[in-house]
Amino acid sequence: MSNRNSARITLVGAGPGDPDLITLKGIKALRQADVVLYDALVNEEILDEAPAEALRVFVGKRAGQHSHKQEEINLLLVQYAYNYGHVVRLKGGDSFVFGRGHEELAYANNFDIPVTVVPGISSCIAVPELQGIPPTRRGVNESFWVLTGTTRSGNLSNDIAIAAQSSATAIILMGMRKIRQIMAEFAAAGKENTPVMVIQNGSLPNERSVLGTVQDISERVESAGIGSPGIIVVGEVVHLHPNLAVKTLAQHKENL
Amino acid sequence: MSNRNSARITLVGAGPGDPDLITLKGIKALRQADVVLYDALVNEEILDEAPAEALRVFVGKRAGQHSHKQEEINLLLVQYAYNYGHVVRLKGGDSFVFGRGHEELAYANNFDIPVTVVPGISSCIAVPELQGIPPTRRGVNESFWVLTGTTRSGNLSNDIAIAAQSSATAIILMGMRKIRQIMAEFAAAGKENTPVMVIQNGSLPNERSVLGTVQDISERVESAGIGSPGIIVVGEVVHLHPNLAVKTLAQHKENL
Repeated sequence: MSNRNSARITLVGAGPGDPDLITLKGIKALRQADVVLYDALVNEEILDEAPAEALRVFVGKRAGQHSHKQEEINLLLVQYAYNYGHVVRLKGGDSFVFGRGHEELAYANNFDIPVTVVPGISSCIAVPELQGIPPTRRGVNESFWVLTGTTRSGNLSNDIAIAAQSSATAIILMGMRKIRQIMAEFAAAGKENTPVMVIQNGSLPNERSVLGTVQDISERVESAGIGSPGIIVVGEVVHLHPNLAVKTLAQHKENL
Repeated sequence: MSNRNSARITLVGAGPGDPDLITLKGIKALRQADVVLYDALVNEEILDEAPAEALRVFVGKRAGQHSHKQEEINLLLVQYAYNYGHVVRLKGGDSFVFGRGHEELAYANNFDIPVTVVPGISSCIAVPELQGIPPTRRGVNESFWVLTGTTRSGNLSNDIAIAAQSSATAIILMGMRKIRQIMAEFAAAGKENTPVMVIQNGSLPNERSVLGTVQDISERVESAGIGSPGIIVVGEVVHLHPNLAVKTLAQHKENL
């Protein structure tokens, strides 16, 4: 309890994977960290920015290992802040985009621990963008809708059916395990032929992607062996992508 | 035409305003720039990262001054790339979020000029986040919808009426001039009492914001003298903000 007065937390979004896609502000926070609590989706190269003596604590989910529950992470944040001072909570993407960053902020505020938020590059926009797909394009559509495939209840969100009926580009995170069910909603809205792109490990050297339509994307994803986590983009803007094939980022760069 | 072979373009998102909210990758691109073409929404402090000898060309819109048309900017990009080599196109927020970045990419590709995209922190997520408002929160809602208030035709996008009927958080960019009309759509969907926040100069020291409801936000914005550009957030997540008042970022920080 030696640093009781300097207890503080900075929630930092680490970006989609490429370690250069963190912000300067995020790097500056890391350089002043006493403790870094980080998730599975964070590129560990980024941890090198923290001082050598800073504690590095992994709190993510990994297959077959103990996974920390949200309540447990909230408590760790507060305990580390009280005991060590400045805790940087490093999360993949942006902490507030399906990242539970706000739950952590609210919990820490209950203990009067000041929380600063440093936005991160969210994969929902950046990952399609790195494939050359804009969320909107003048003359094609006028909005984009970011949804989760995995809700608290375990059911598909009702918002997906509404999104299927709109002209918005639908960008679905955490939906790979339910891709057939999600595509059925779009097909039911008469969008069998709307183009779809699925991207895994976006912005990383092992990035993979599949292009298809609402009708055939589930088969294509399966044939390509692409699993979770992945991003699903449904909408006419996907037509702006140069071709329809499974390819790596390296091949994509050759095309540019 | 001396650098014909090294002509290339990097589209860099500069973030919402705070100069520390650019990515490391964006900084690295700027350090290798021969020319920087930048918009009005870019914080000019960021330009210091470019080499002293790099050309700095302002192509944004400013009141009462000549404003460059998109076709003109496209042409400038290609001409500067041919004549000087590496052009960094620096835009506020993210180049692909209502930023016409994809139009510039497509135009340059027609001339076989390679284009690299460096994602930026988009104000649509970051600016509400810096106010403590997450786009979604477990148990409150499951998606967010990003819309523009200004369409090609000049009319209000039909997507706004659909968004008003959904449970998505609606985040509206470029909508300040039509705020009454936009709020009328939400009121028509029975959302008179849904909370709304309007934020101007998000992430900057002169940030200002107003909280209200669908019913009264237009009045409040007018009384506070808040104009364009601003971000409008409509949805139950706005209730997560600590209070209802016009305040500066400095005051907000005191509250944390």
